Amino acid sequence: MDNLEKWIQVFPDFPSKGILFRDISPLLADPVALRIVKERLCKSIKPFQPDYIAGIDARGFLFSTLVAEHLEIGSLMVRKSGKLPGKIVEKSYNLEYGSNTLSMQIKPLNQKKVVIIDDLLATGGSMQCSKDLLESQQAEVVGGAVIIELKSLRGAEFLKMPIISLLSYDD
Amino acid sequence: MDNLEKWIQVFPDFPSKGILFRDISPLLADPVALRIVKERLCKSIKPFQPDYIAGIDARGFLFSTLVAEHLEIGSLMVRKSGKLPGKIVEKSYNLEYGSNTLSMQIKPLNQKKVVIIDDLLATGGSMQCSKDLLESQQAEVVGGAVIIELKSLRGAEFLKMPIISLLSYDD
Repeated sequence: MDNLEKWIQVFPDFPSKGILFRDISPLLADPVALRIVKERLCKSIKPFQPDYIAGIDARGFLFSTLVAEHLEIGSLMVRKSGKLPGKIVEKSYNLEYGSNTLSMQIKPLNQKKVVIIDDLLATGGSMQCSKDLLESQQAEVVGGAVIIELKSLRGAEFLKMPIISLLSYDD
Repeated sequence: MDNLEKWIQVFPDFPSKGILFRDISPLLADPVALRIVKERLCKSIKPFQPDYIAGIDARGFLFSTLVAEHLEIGSLMVRKSGKLPGKIVEKSYNLEYGSNTLSMQIKPLNQKKVVIIDDLLATGGSMQCSKDLLESQQAEVVGGAVIIELKSLRGAEFLKMPIISLLSYDD
């Protein structure tokens, strides 16, 4: 089995001092890696039988439509503030470095099952915020999926829902 | 043939007065529409024989990996300022409402063929800026692809390269 780690490039002190940034650019640039990522995500997510994949702005979008289209389900956007037209719900959260506000359009999701997707899980702030927003629209958030999980930050414990990660790091 | 227009929702005066915002959220949420979009984009882009699909942050990411994975090629990210680690090139441009700076990682793309993808083509500012950035890395930018083209803003004329659009509007 191919190890995806070889397609992750590490940058110390980005975006701020003390942060070890794990960059998925090499993974995205290689069609072999992209195929593996799609297949592993779909295989892991399918048992949750989601109706939608919600992608978190911006890097979640790289995977939300990719997975949704393959699973023949819809995709949703959880976006940064000010980006979505129409009636929206907003919520703020703290993230590993700084803070952020996420929003989504008002949409009745009466018990529809949703898996939230992003490139990386750190403390889980953006994932929890997305979950709260989706639940405010009566979605049933059945899990989260990421390419990279930073285990030491305990995001999965914080989130109290199943988390799929293709790669995890302890440091 | 299904008309994608039924999956586009129109919002007047967003993000600012006088702008008619065409929202792809309903299209993303419907697996039928998502499949049609993928197939039409891939069919139109394939003849250009690109080596990479470059997605423009953030909504271009919804389509860059989707198309790249299907065509078995790589994808690249053109990102907003401050988002990419490592050595980058940056360039600013004016867009329909306001201004923006885009960046990409320094990457030798020696004559590799690239198609740039985004959700919408308005004046072409972000597409041209992305083209300039890619060309600064010696890419051969062979075309652009969007879901929606706003014809009256003449982006395609400005860009001087082939533009694929799945939907176009005159107003």
